[in-house]
Amino acid sequence: MTAFDDGLLSPVATGFDDAVRDDAVVDALVRAELALVTAYRETGMLTDGDHAVLAVALGKEPVGGPIDGASLAAASVSSGNPVIPLVAVLRDRVPEHLRLWIHRGATSQDIVDTALMIVAVSAVGRLRALLDRVLAGLARLEETHGADVVVARTLTQHAVPTTVGTRVHTWTRGVERAVSRLALLEFPAQLAGAAGTRASFVQITGSVAGAQALAASFARHAGLEEPEGSWQVSRWPITEMGDALVQTLDALGKVATDVATLSRTEIGEMAEGAGGGSSAMPHKSNPVESTLIRSASLRAPQLAATLHLAAAQAADERPDGAWHAEWPTLREMLRLALGASAHAGSLVEGLRIDVAAGTRNLDLTGGLVITERLAIVLEPLIGRARFDDVQSAARSGQDLRSLIRALPEANDLDVDALLDPARYVGRDPASEFPGER
Amino acid sequence: MTAFDDGLLSPVATGFDDAVRDDAVVDALVRAELALVTAYRETGMLTDGDHAVLAVALGKEPVGGPIDGASLAAASVSSGNPVIPLVAVLRDRVPEHLRLWIHRGATSQDIVDTALMIVAVSAVGRLRALLDRVLAGLARLEETHGADVVVARTLTQHAVPTTVGTRVHTWTRGVERAVSRLALLEFPAQLAGAAGTRASFVQITGSVAGAQALAASFARHAGLEEPEGSWQVSRWPITEMGDALVQTLDALGKVATDVATLSRTEIGEMAEGAGGGSSAMPHKSNPVESTLIRSASLRAPQLAATLHLAAAQAADERPDGAWHAEWPTLREMLRLALGASAHAGSLVEGLRIDVAAGTRNLDLTGGLVITERLAIVLEPLIGRARFDDVQSAARSGQDLRSLIRALPEANDLDVDALLDPARYVGRDPASEFPGER
Amino acid sequence: MTAFDDGLLSPVATGFDDAVRDDAVVDALVRAELALVTAYRETGMLTDGDHAVLAVALGKEPVGGPIDGASLAAASVSSGNPVIPLVAVLRDRVPEHLRLWIHRGATSQDIVDTALMIVAVSAVGRLRALLDRVLAGLARLEETHGADVVVARTLTQHAVPTTVGTRVHTWTRGVERAVSRLALLEFPAQLAGAAGTRASFVQITGSVAGAQALAASFARHAGLEEPEGSWQVSRWPITEMGDALVQTLDALGKVATDVATLSRTEIGEMAEGAGGGSSAMPHKSNPVESTLIRSASLRAPQLAATLHLAAAQAADERPDGAWHAEWPTLREMLRLALGASAHAGSLVEGLRIDVAAGTRNLDLTGGLVITERLAIVLEPLIGRARFDDVQSAARSGQDLRSLIRALPEANDLDVDALLDPARYVGRDPASEFPGER
Amino acid sequence: MTAFDDGLLSPVATGFDDAVRDDAVVDALVRAELALVTAYRETGMLTDGDHAVLAVALGKEPVGGPIDGASLAAASVSSGNPVIPLVAVLRDRVPEHLRLWIHRGATSQDIVDTALMIVAVSAVGRLRALLDRVLAGLARLEETHGADVVVARTLTQHAVPTTVGTRVHTWTRGVERAVSRLALLEFPAQLAGAAGTRASFVQITGSVAGAQALAASFARHAGLEEPEGSWQVSRWPITEMGDALVQTLDALGKVATDVATLSRTEIGEMAEGAGGGSSAMPHKSNPVESTLIRSASLRAPQLAATLHLAAAQAADERPDGAWHAEWPTLREMLRLALGASAHAGSLVEGLRIDVAAGTRNLDLTGGLVITERLAIVLEPLIGRARFDDVQSAARSGQDLRSLIRALPEANDLDVDALLDPARYVGRDPASEFPGER
Repeated sequence: MTAFDDGLLSPVATGFDDAVRDDAVVDALVRAELALVTAYRETGMLTDGDHAVLAVALGKEPVGGPIDGASLAAASVSSGNPVIPLVAVLRDRVPEHLRLWIHRGATSQDIVDTALMIVAVSAVGRLRALLDRVLAGLARLEETHGADVVVARTLTQHAVPTTVGTRVHTWTRGVERAVSRLALLEFPAQLAGAAGTRASFVQITGSVAGAQALAASFARHAGLEEPEGSWQVSRWPITEMGDALVQTLDALGKVATDVATLSRTEIGEMAEGAGGGSSAMPHKSNPVESTLIRSASLRAPQLAATLHLAAAQAADERPDGAWHAEWPTLREMLRLALGASAHAGSLVEGLRIDVAAGTRNLDLTGGLVITERLAIVLEPLIGRARFDDVQSAARSGQDLRSLIRALPEANDLDVDALLDPARYVGRDPASEFPGER
Repeated sequence: MTAFDDGLLSPVATGFDDAVRDDAVVDALVRAELALVTAYRETGMLTDGDHAVLAVALGKEPVGGPIDGASLAAASVSSGNPVIPLVAVLRDRVPEHLRLWIHRGATSQDIVDTALMIVAVSAVGRLRALLDRVLAGLARLEETHGADVVVARTLTQHAVPTTVGTRVHTWTRGVERAVSRLALLEFPAQLAGAAGTRASFVQITGSVAGAQALAASFARHAGLEEPEGSWQVSRWPITEMGDALVQTLDALGKVATDVATLSRTEIGEMAEGAGGGSSAMPHKSNPVESTLIRSASLRAPQLAATLHLAAAQAADERPDGAWHAEWPTLREMLRLALGASAHAGSLVEGLRIDVAAGTRNLDLTGGLVITERLAIVLEPLIGRARFDDVQSAARSGQDLRSLIRALPEANDLDVDALLDPARYVGRDPASEFPGER
Repeated sequence: MTAFDDGLLSPVATGFDDAVRDDAVVDALVRAELALVTAYRETGMLTDGDHAVLAVALGKEPVGGPIDGASLAAASVSSGNPVIPLVAVLRDRVPEHLRLWIHRGATSQDIVDTALMIVAVSAVGRLRALLDRVLAGLARLEETHGADVVVARTLTQHAVPTTVGTRVHTWTRGVERAVSRLALLEFPAQLAGAAGTRASFVQITGSVAGAQALAASFARHAGLEEPEGSWQVSRWPITEMGDALVQTLDALGKVATDVATLSRTEIGEMAEGAGGGSSAMPHKSNPVESTLIRSASLRAPQLAATLHLAAAQAADERPDGAWHAEWPTLREMLRLALGASAHAGSLVEGLRIDVAAGTRNLDLTGGLVITERLAIVLEPLIGRARFDDVQSAARSGQDLRSLIRALPEANDLDVDALLDPARYVGRDPASEFPGER
Repeated sequence: MTAFDDGLLSPVATGFDDAVRDDAVVDALVRAELALVTAYRETGMLTDGDHAVLAVALGKEPVGGPIDGASLAAASVSSGNPVIPLVAVLRDRVPEHLRLWIHRGATSQDIVDTALMIVAVSAVGRLRALLDRVLAGLARLEETHGADVVVARTLTQHAVPTTVGTRVHTWTRGVERAVSRLALLEFPAQLAGAAGTRASFVQITGSVAGAQALAASFARHAGLEEPEGSWQVSRWPITEMGDALVQTLDALGKVATDVATLSRTEIGEMAEGAGGGSSAMPHKSNPVESTLIRSASLRAPQLAATLHLAAAQAADERPDGAWHAEWPTLREMLRLALGASAHAGSLVEGLRIDVAAGTRNLDLTGGLVITERLAIVLEPLIGRARFDDVQSAARSGQDLRSLIRALPEANDLDVDALLDPARYVGRDPASEFPGER
């Protein structure tokens, strides 16, 4: 029996998606059931001895062997989710008098939602570490090449000068903001019973306070936050995660889009450290990591949309399809974010900046990238009409420097400094060129 | 000349979308240009007198009359955005020596982004007020009907008992959470110049500090937050707004979905206060507001996706299309959120709860909605096998009450209390039925 | 090493997705390479003997054993697609002098696109068989229950009478139309070389005609249609497939939505043959197959959107990410369509129609479902004002039959027939009630 | 009162969207009501005289003046669609005894669906004319510049030579295919009554055949196709239109993406005829039309997704929100397609091709773009190892021509011809260079 998906068609994530594989989900489902049993012990409903027996059966190396994800998947179809067959397997592994305690009072959604949060909290943890690497790489880039003057492009055209630092800073801000959104995420456990009222747990524990203590203990043992109540049909923990993940992929997609563009043969200002080669075309250095990251950022927004649709369509106390649409969608988003951020880290670390190409490109328009500055300086001196004349002459090929030097009003100007792109990138004249002003 | 869109095909928003109409956008564009002029005065670059002249021309009732949105739109096509023709119109209205100061140092994107934020901050303000009304209505519902016991439904089927209060609380949590997301939004002005470096403003003011002071003053006069830098191609202020708006529509969509479902002729537990009638079918009471809200919540996720796509595709220092895709998309999302929340307010205020229908529905399965409770109570007494027998007998039509009363082990049980759905909704036995325990 | 995805989170497809698994993709990639080698033989470039050696190495049971999908996936990351490592493996399996002929003249995209089409043509074949089963089941439903009179609902409210036949016919039309779209799909092979010009094949074969013959032979041996040229960056074969698949899921989603709605405990007109049970809630009969189908139909539209985005962003002669975004997306759509149609087949075959519930629901509004008919018949006789009086009286509880009998103008009417819902469902009075007219 | 939307934020469509404005929708709604009245006359239910009175009231210049879209929109909110208030207005305009005949037997959805199809058939007609202009422009481009040899790019990198003709042909194929999809669209009228059974029309006309004749006549007078039955909740006519529109925008988006890319300052192979200028940056020639087209193609896929979602969620005999979500979405797609195709026409007509830039770019890699050809020719002569040596030497700067001339095995080769990019673009050697072979 082979796998449905091992990454063959998702190279962006291959090798980085362990945290969200089916087996990680199976482990998380079992961990959720174990957390419930442990919560029953912690709240005094179950003896230590009984708990110990259960804990072994639900532990990492149970007697019956690990639970096979593919078999569990096959058994899930008739009930529509994997918890019903899982509970049957787990109950089979414990003495009859303890079977009752497995999944006691819980509904399938409690376990699936909690398991997905267990998977998510771990995946988002890894993601944040991967993004830290991206930020560290960007910081190094800014350190090394931040002051390099290059041309800024708007609507594909050369506009005015800028610096590699400004560009990298924009990337950094995007990633930092995404990180700050990830940091705000809440990962609540779910333990609300058949229809979100917790009635079963109130019944079993004898009080609302008992049910609440049980939920708190459950959450703690699942490694999650205590839910303030049921979120079975109030799906913001899912959509907010989706939003933060797509924001992450937006930020990485922006970096990748710029790198791919600046890697174009004609531009050549940047190159990936390990660009993909082509045996037949040795002159190529494909921006493969940028390409893979971009593929992820093209897919993620529509996946996030599915999560929102499911949230709005969360009818009744459990909907007939909307909830089920969330699972593979959220998981795929986590996968894409992990893969894209791993590649972004290596992309940024290996990124090669071709300073000469930057300078060469900056010169392509014969100094006209500085026109905006000239207008600011010269228009007050010579008026708009005469400034337009200078500009037209320059566009038709005359030397800009000579044209300006020929202006009597410009006698006092340091024309070389005026035309220097490095002096028109938003840096402070005082600190940059202290001698001059 | 007639309007392209006056709401004929968007009844959800008709009458509630003033804050985001084309004219509001025109006003905001002019206000952004005025804020820049005022910032120049505040930072000492422009005299009070000159500023006064400019302020009149850019004010609410300028000599040339209000700017016509349709004409401006028509003039926008060749440059791809409305700022270039707007600046031409505005400059025509001021004495020649002051023309320079209009739009000085700015790029079109500075003005468009700032104007959209001006529109958004006002629209989100209204939206929050509308959502407060929704929350107030929900609080009243919870007060009046919170304790009513009704049936909870999962996957379309009766599950266990719940209360109107639990249902309303779920709605409330969704709306509150959306409100908390709206409250976190940042509405920065944009003033970063031709390619995000602020070089023009550094040039004009003479220093980075000067440019920064100008941007701060500009933001203040635009009624916005000071941007920490350029967000011309780091679009999180847009996507985060989109995410919060779609989250709002998710929360309202959940309410509307439940109301529409519970309004079904066969269910009849809820009805809109002013259900839409039908002359041909007088027995109908269409849940029109729910329908309109639902239509908005079906559309919003895909609009939010477009904003994310645009963010990830924000190439270079200004992209060739991605930025332009944002404007109508964000505006439409604001429109939908305003309309849906206005209708949600009136929906919730007018909502009629049919207590009798709730009770009738609860009884439809002959007491079986309480099975989960019975299992918790009886299985420990009589074992699973015998409990299954009781349950089967009940499903085949025997009276559940008599079946339980016939169990010797159940002698001590208060069977009426045991079967009472009101006692299995997650409330505290101690406080609910103090005499009993 | 475990699988990333074995269906645990996609129960809708589990068990029905063999045709589109990673291994099916690997097989298709190898088959595409084999088709190229065979095309070289067929066009006389390769001897039968050499071809035989190659065919064994690229056959079903090659000496080196089957190619492992997971390893291939891992090796794909650095080049961004699986063909480069696959070609290396395949070349290793043949004598040195023949290595040249493997992948000769082709580019990775030729093989990936062709392989995805091989997978798709097989999957769509299965899909059409599954949909035939759905249509057969619907035909049987129409035969058995087509004439049953039930209530039609609009905006959740009872409207007028209809028949199960009309409802089923609507479902049938949707599925038939989707089938007709699937039938229009084209499955072209791709063989256009490094950048879509076929220059390599012209070089190798010596002429455009030779390259064309090679492509035709390649397509035939791949089981696909001859491409009329390169579609490397003209992606309509992919988007049209996505559109037909989502249309299929729309049609199935409509069926599932209706079944789920009509299965509601309060409505009870339909039930799935094998509704999912709940140990804790024996009164439930969850519409599980409807739920799973609905989950697929909520996800598919956004996946199709990704294919369109990728098509519009197909820059240059091969884009930097858009192409890569297609693969997993198209595959997932095929998977969902296969799973949903398999479930739809069994859903429709097993569907139970509760005639009594249909009749009971029809009566819920005390005959008012027939109001529209009454208006047509009575208004011309008694005028609008008096008709409104009758109607109001009926709504406030008076017996409709008696009210009409009391009208002198209605003396000649057969009131029982007039009020009979079965006579107002769009059937022909002449053929239905031949004696009457 | 100003318009909600006059195109200020949708410059891509401004000036091209007359066919789909609110007023066009109002006209179409009235025309649908008129078509029904006329169908009643044609089927003999209404006298010519009565019809004449009604036709004036529902005609282009009715006594009461044109219907105001904004007022109608405002009046639509309470019922959720514009037909109920429209019918009231229209009935007020005719003598009392004829009022009955306006909207007789119809439901709001009949009129809204028919009106949207009236709008669509006209818009798609215009669209096809606009696309013909695009195709004509592309044909001219191919004629003038088809043979120009330029470099092909894959994953942003120079790959092998190609021609402008090959590129333009790819564009043409995409547009042609979209046109063929538009040509397949069906534009059925809707006339199925309150819940799709046509019972009202059977009642009024006395037979199924009568109802059918009425529907056929209605469709004809509305300028639409006769519906084969109700499509009130079988929404393929809407989704297929959405799919064809997005396919159109995909094809135009591909053109625009390539033009924008090839207009980059560093590439400069193409330029829009009337590139948008910038007063502050005279060296810019913004690809404004490409930018606008691209903005539309980024938005359309998600709009099409909404149509599919609505189709799958079309519950019951009329859904509570899904239908309403279609109207503004379909209309916006028509608008975008009209605007984008208008701009694509002018873009293609005005497109300037810089042959020198194409040649200059082709040379950028020092002849290495021809490596693939060299491998095909030389490897059989000198083996792979020696070929790799040649290639390495070339990459490190040695002259490729001399390296090849130094190979004894290459004595018979015409090295100049071998290295000529124009001879490696997929053209036929025999016809291209007849003297040579």
